[in-house]
Amino acid sequence: MLADPAAFRYRSKAMESATPQVQEPVRFGTHPSRYRHWKLSFDGPTARLVMAVDDRHPMRDGYVLKLNSYDLGVDVELADAVQRLRFEHPEVRCVLVSSGTDNCFCAGANIYMLGSSTHAFKVNFCKFTNETRIYLEEASAKSGQTYVAALNGVASGGGYELALACEHIYLQDDGSSAVSFPETPLLAVLPGTGGLTRLVDKRKVRRDLADVFSTLAEGVRGKRSKDWGLVDDVFPKSKFEAEVKKRGDAIVAAAAPKEGGAAFELAAIEPERREENGKLFSHYRYVELTIDPGARSATLLMRGPDAPAPTTSEALRREGNDTWHLRAFRELDDALLDLRFNHPTVGLVLLQTKGDAAQVQAHDAALLALQGDWLGREILLNTARVLRRLDLTARSLFATIEPGSCFAGSLFELTLAADRSYMLASDDADGPKIQLGPVNFGAFPMSNGLSRLQTRFLAKPSHVEALRSETAPQDHEGALSLGLVTFAPDDIDWDDDVRIAIEERASLSPDALTGMEANLRFAGPETMETKIFARLSAWQNWIFQRPNAVGERGALTMYGRPERPEFDWRRT
Amino acid sequence: MLADPAAFRYRSKAMESATPQVQEPVRFGTHPSRYRHWKLSFDGPTARLVMAVDDRHPMRDGYVLKLNSYDLGVDVELADAVQRLRFEHPEVRCVLVSSGTDNCFCAGANIYMLGSSTHAFKVNFCKFTNETRIYLEEASAKSGQTYVAALNGVASGGGYELALACEHIYLQDDGSSAVSFPETPLLAVLPGTGGLTRLVDKRKVRRDLADVFSTLAEGVRGKRSKDWGLVDDVFPKSKFEAEVKKRGDAIVAAAAPKEGGAAFELAAIEPERREENGKLFSHYRYVELTIDPGARSATLLMRGPDAPAPTTSEALRREGNDTWHLRAFRELDDALLDLRFNHPTVGLVLLQTKGDAAQVQAHDAALLALQGDWLGREILLNTARVLRRLDLTARSLFATIEPGSCFAGSLFELTLAADRSYMLASDDADGPKIQLGPVNFGAFPMSNGLSRLQTRFLAKPSHVEALRSETAPQDHEGALSLGLVTFAPDDIDWDDDVRIAIEERASLSPDALTGMEANLRFAGPETMETKIFARLSAWQNWIFQRPNAVGERGALTMYGRPERPEFDWRRT
Repeated sequence: MLADPAAFRYRSKAMESATPQVQEPVRFGTHPSRYRHWKLSFDGPTARLVMAVDDRHPMRDGYVLKLNSYDLGVDVELADAVQRLRFEHPEVRCVLVSSGTDNCFCAGANIYMLGSSTHAFKVNFCKFTNETRIYLEEASAKSGQTYVAALNGVASGGGYELALACEHIYLQDDGSSAVSFPETPLLAVLPGTGGLTRLVDKRKVRRDLADVFSTLAEGVRGKRSKDWGLVDDVFPKSKFEAEVKKRGDAIVAAAAPKEGGAAFELAAIEPERREENGKLFSHYRYVELTIDPGARSATLLMRGPDAPAPTTSEALRREGNDTWHLRAFRELDDALLDLRFNHPTVGLVLLQTKGDAAQVQAHDAALLALQGDWLGREILLNTARVLRRLDLTARSLFATIEPGSCFAGSLFELTLAADRSYMLASDDADGPKIQLGPVNFGAFPMSNGLSRLQTRFLAKPSHVEALRSETAPQDHEGALSLGLVTFAPDDIDWDDDVRIAIEERASLSPDALTGMEANLRFAGPETMETKIFARLSAWQNWIFQRPNAVGERGALTMYGRPERPEFDWRRT
Repeated sequence: MLADPAAFRYRSKAMESATPQVQEPVRFGTHPSRYRHWKLSFDGPTARLVMAVDDRHPMRDGYVLKLNSYDLGVDVELADAVQRLRFEHPEVRCVLVSSGTDNCFCAGANIYMLGSSTHAFKVNFCKFTNETRIYLEEASAKSGQTYVAALNGVASGGGYELALACEHIYLQDDGSSAVSFPETPLLAVLPGTGGLTRLVDKRKVRRDLADVFSTLAEGVRGKRSKDWGLVDDVFPKSKFEAEVKKRGDAIVAAAAPKEGGAAFELAAIEPERREENGKLFSHYRYVELTIDPGARSATLLMRGPDAPAPTTSEALRREGNDTWHLRAFRELDDALLDLRFNHPTVGLVLLQTKGDAAQVQAHDAALLALQGDWLGREILLNTARVLRRLDLTARSLFATIEPGSCFAGSLFELTLAADRSYMLASDDADGPKIQLGPVNFGAFPMSNGLSRLQTRFLAKPSHVEALRSETAPQDHEGALSLGLVTFAPDDIDWDDDVRIAIEERASLSPDALTGMEANLRFAGPETMETKIFARLSAWQNWIFQRPNAVGERGALTMYGRPERPEFDWRRT
């Protein structure tokens, strides 16, 4: 977040009003040709991602994006760039992230945007930016695209947090460029986009130095920043470009050889939207999102594949954007973000599927067989990311398993991601079945590093091993006895049982459910990712409610004004 | 927390008023002879801890402790009992926890107490009760005193959470006794005393069943509670006593033989308190707590031993309560609780020591040598617990290392627990020194399971190994170069540097500091304990601020009234 009050004299009417709101629905599709805030360029295996925020184009009126500060619009472009680099530029081995403005790398999330946002928007904004940074780290770790932060200026708050998500950080040594976390001293909030966690858990900065650093508004520069482990190296301004390039070239030289060029450009994902009888429908090709605002619930239906699986690299490329896994899970991703940002009062999402389980299994098998192909690997990794986005979506999730559904393999992960599942008990041949497949045993890790089956059966890891041989379709009796679904009412009870469960869930406090689900969904080991989403985010959310930050005289509210904030000094 | 609104018609004036406060300072010393709410009895190696809350004696006016609901006063007695069992009843191998009221084991934390408490009190109350439950688990794991919950009635909310902290849970199968978490459905808060975490991480209950259970106000009873893993077994009422006794006897039979009788009764820890020049002084024998309310800071001085170390079991028993480690750290514990509950605006604590480092080392060595003796082990474990209480105290901690100090061995842990440390740079022979000892390498694990040195040097575990041979006293140069202190100003800069650091720290938002410290202090691995204090507590604290729980129409506020709560349905 931002460190320089002088840059922010401008305050619009909207900012002064108490509860400005995002008016237009937030959309997440974009394209490099439409980027306003980032410049993406290529030099063979090296990509450059230059942040050059157009301060006159915030996502909504009311603030100016000075000093390369960002809002959701800026981060949507970054997320798009990280995704396209993986799919459209497989030859890239190193991504240099720098700023288009010398002396200023990035001032972090825009404070006036934060100050004038609702609590729910702030929380979801932070979650999305956190996910983008985790995806960027995953690209370094799993796609062989190593991100390098070249800090040619001050990186404060979210600016330094972005750098921390990169594998290497280089800082210009020019007497002014610095890294800093001014959140606590200036704004009474936390560096909540992974900052505190990555400081001590990723870079393993000594905790007392991390303490000093995190309370020093002006930050740390030059040799000290290297000595403290905040950056990997510092170079004088005159040599900065060359030294960074040298390190980028070394990364490229040490990397696995080029993986072939782009197969296709990622197509836009745009549903057909309509409203009917008070319900809102978004029709994608494989996904249907139906929102019932009155019931505060939604249905997310995923359709299975409608064409044979591509079983060769060539076929995969021919299918391209229409590859079922790629298209269906990109659509799911878009629907989840739509739910998070544009439908905050929807508390419960029913997960459903429709189609041919054998087709799902065939596509899963084909994709697993193609994971040696970079494109197959990327589609698999993307599927895993979208499923993690589902886990991290703060809405109650119930899977309802009915005739005609295809909860098999990758789509069975929806059941495993759900807070609970209802399967119709039926002895008919066409009664619903569920089916495990090889993908359920590790292809889609959760944030805690375990498969959803491992997390589910934490009490009995041997059961997960036993399930490997249970790949036949299971009716309700098999599903119940294997512990794979929660309840199986018969057709006499189904309507009442499910309806009552839905109504009860929708009647509970949304806050208590958010906290409860955040604690129950991620049993077992902790990772940097779960630490960021659980501990750090929970504390930040707490602070985002505290009068010392967001009250009338709170530090976030008062930022940039001549008066000092006023604090309630009681510690909790 | 409580499940039965009908039990709570009584509402005092104090409860209705908006901000009732704890008037009297909270004190933590008690004695079984003064227990109002628990009955502790013994049958050889089996102890019985019977909860029989005297509803007419809440810790402060304004609520009635119906249905074995508890407040801080009840939990202070429990903490005292758990501590005395370890020190005064080493022969005990099994502790049966049950209720004095049939049909009702414990209804959890009293809702009206919570509803009429300040945010800071609620948070500190939950932290203390969490610590007590973790200590109870530690007694099972490390002191060979296995806790068994014998649920002879409904155990709801905090009642079931208490059971979850026991190693075994048995439930009476009588058609009404149940375990339940009504917090989310009835009160819009979380089972925040470890409940959600222990459910999925200790008992490893399947997450979908945990989800159903945690939203079912009436809870789960009988066979289903066993099938879901919520309890270990259920017995009919007629056989309950006998079956539980059988299991207790089996624990005793399988346990290590009796360790000898009590050595002495734990003495009361009570400082002399006085006020002078606007400062508050608490003089214990080895601890001095000085509070400067105007500066919102305090000094915690620990004195080193003033007598030779007891080097034999007999000498240890002769010293008894006066054993330096036992007395000094019990005093520190009392001072920390005093700070937490009675001095909420003190944001910064300066940690200081005075005495002879060689004496500290001699006492440490003697204690380590006596850890095969149960009493030596208990004193060591208690020291570790108090140091963890220090880690978990939400106040900034600065260690200041000056001439005459004795930051050696166990007292050097204060420096390692501090958020940062200042050591006077001095080339004089009597300049301050610090000194590592064998106890710094694992005797006092943090909540994350690592030693404070391991946590500090997470980036370089080999450095911790190298430090094992650095046991000579170190002046500021040695301390700096070994990475053991943060700063070492000389006598010209000392006053200004330290003063400015103190003033700056005391000027920052207490909330941001609490969140920042909670994230920076516990790098590295996560344990159930860190999960409870970080993730679960942070979410609970967030919820304790939310209007849906504590607003005028929030569920916690409205509990027991005929009207329904009103929710803001936006999810975050």
